[in-house]
Order: sequence, then structure tokens, then C-alpha cells
Amino acid sequence: MLPPAAERLVAELERLPGVGRRTAQRLAFHLLRVPESEALNLATAITVVRERIGFCQECFSLAEGDLCTTCADPRRDTTMICVVETPSDVIPIERTASYRGRYHVLGGALSPIDGVDPDDLRIAELVRRVERGGVDEVILATNPTMTGEATASFVAGLLRPHARVTRLASGLPVGADLEFADEVTLGRALAGRRDL
Amino acid sequence: MLPPAAERLVAELERLPGVGRRTAQRLAFHLLRVPESEALNLATAITVVRERIGFCQECFSLAEGDLCTTCADPRRDTTMICVVETPSDVIPIERTASYRGRYHVLGGALSPIDGVDPDDLRIAELVRRVERGGVDEVILATNPTMTGEATASFVAGLLRPHARVTRLASGLPVGADLEFADEVTLGRALAGRRDL
Repeated sequence: MLPPAAERLVAELERLPGVGRRTAQRLAFHLLRVPESEALNLATAITVVRERIGFCQECFSLAEGDLCTTCADPRRDTTMICVVETPSDVIPIERTASYRGRYHVLGGALSPIDGVDPDDLRIAELVRRVERGGVDEVILATNPTMTGEATASFVAGLLRPHARVTRLASGLPVGADLEFADEVTLGRALAGRRDL
Repeated sequence: MLPPAAERLVAELERLPGVGRRTAQRLAFHLLRVPESEALNLATAITVVRERIGFCQECFSLAEGDLCTTCADPRRDTTMICVVETPSDVIPIERTASYRGRYHVLGGALSPIDGVDPDDLRIAELVRRVERGGVDEVILATNPTMTGEATASFVAGLLRPHARVTRLASGLPVGADLEFADEVTLGRALAGRRDL
């Protein structure tokens, strides 16, 4: 139906998350219609990102070069480490503009069913960072899911001898309606209630 | 927040239709996580599509080479031409599997307000194709919008001396509910009613 080169582009676009065949066709036609330079800029950006970006040697976030922008920034507080599952989890935390410490990216969450053991994550590297000293608090910001909670418990057990270990609060999201809160979240909100 | 190469990829992805900043970030992280070959395949597909794909010399659909797959297919009926606005409009018509003729892509619709005059579309080329003879019917399949209808009327006036000129039916979409039909569509459905 389409020329082979266009069919191939549609097939490659369909591999992107959340992109079905119709969306892939719409994107392909867009890339055929825009000025050639715009399409080639996207192709180049993809190639360059894979050439240049690797993991930060210190915290395993994405980095261009040896260190990520956070680890390379001398103004960031080195006494706090925020532990997240994936590099993309750093973005929402940075967006709050209320955290000035460093990060540590585990590269996933423990999940024996999926064959993800402690050795598959950057847990040993985290323990070494904390054992080196100078870290007062480790904030465990893994997801509030079964695997994220299990990972937080496991990591907390290893780090407690060396630093204060905290976990992100669970509770009602701001703006939520009590009527529609699920019972687990509401139970956590009750258990974590604070004095006013 | 992100390394420069990743920021640049997010910015390029944001230029795609329907892709906001969050989606662009998600796509960028996807392209960083998949095997390098998968990311580079997408970059190559974009580059190749712009290198190889142009317009069919006969009907102005997308083509790899001089002719599109439809014009190059000797089994297609050369006595019928279906006129559409854009190359992507060919896909839904092919999907019906009920049209075996050729196409003609105008490259848009007449819209004096947007400065689109007959000279900006492939109308002269269509008239020449029909004047060359051998065409019994021209189906005008421009969109049922103000500009699409205006284009159909204009083109019909030029072609009527040379061939039968038809227009896609307007009416209720299959599966629709009469209660929710807009009055213009329902009016068209009444006007176009058929004997049973």
C-alpha cells in the first residue's frame, strides 16, 4: 500500500511505546511532509543520543561523559542520596525543586519472578558509596509497588548500619477525593497521619 | 536536568504531532533503553524515507522511484481515477478493498483564505490526465469539509466535459445513532436517500 521505505518507517515507529499502526502512519506522513532538515534532525538526535549517552560512573543516571549533571554539580548536597529505580525517575523529583542532594539509580526493582536479583541492580555500588562515608541520609524513592517496596526493604536492611534511611511518604495525592481513594492508599494515609 | 544530547532528542520528538513534553521524554528514555540497533534502525528508516521517497510522476502519491505502487500495477483499472487531497488519504480508501482504480493526489484543498489557489494544487495535471482519454469516471474523494467541497465543485466543473464525475456519498456513518447525528449530516442522509 505504501512504498517499501515508508512501510519500514511505519514498522519502526510502531515499536515505540504507545504507538499503534494508525499513529505510526500519521507520524510517518508527518516526517515525509516536514522540511527534510526537520526529519533528519530527529534521525541525528537519535543517533547522537546513543553515541554519547551512557551511565554516570557515580550514580548510574544518564550521563554524557563520566559524570551526570547532578554528580558533576559541586553545589549539590553530597550528604543525601535519593535512590530511584530508573534514570527517568530522576526527572519528577528534580521537577519538585525541593531536593538538592545526589541520586543513585538502581536500574530496576527486585523481582524474583522476573529473575531480577540483588546482583542485577546497582545495590553493591550503593552500599560502597554509603560505606565510603559522608552520607547522612538515604531516601528510598523506589515506586510504591510490590517490587518497589520489596527493594526498599532490602536496601534499607543493608544501609541502616551506616546512615539514616528514609522512605517517601505514602498517602492521598494532593487534590484527590477521599470518596475515590483506594483502601490501601487511605490505610497508608491514616497510618502516616501527622500532628497539626 | 538531562544530558544535552538527551535534551536535544526530547526537543526533536516534541515536534511530532500529538507528542507533548512528557511523551517526548518517555519516547527518549525508551530509545535510550532499547538495544542500540533498534534505536539506530529508526534513525536510518527516517533518513532513508527522505532519501528515497518522492511523488509519483503520474498521480502524485508517494513513490519510491518514478511511479507509485498503484500506478505501476498493471492490474489496476485505468478507467477510474479517485481524487484525494493528500497522500495519506489513499490509505483509508485502499483499506476498504473496494476500489481497484487509480488515484490522483491534489496536494491539498482550495482555500483562498489560506492562499491556496488552483495553481497550488495538481489540478492542471488531473485535467491533462483525463483529457488524454481512457478515463470513464472520476470519483472526487476530497474531505466533506468546506474546503474539500469547494475543491470538488471546482474540479467537477473542469472535468464534466470529459468524463463522468462522482462524489463520495455523505450520510450517517455505519453504526451511528440517529439521536446524536448533527443536522447537516442528517440532512445529507435524507437528501441522498436510496430506494429499497
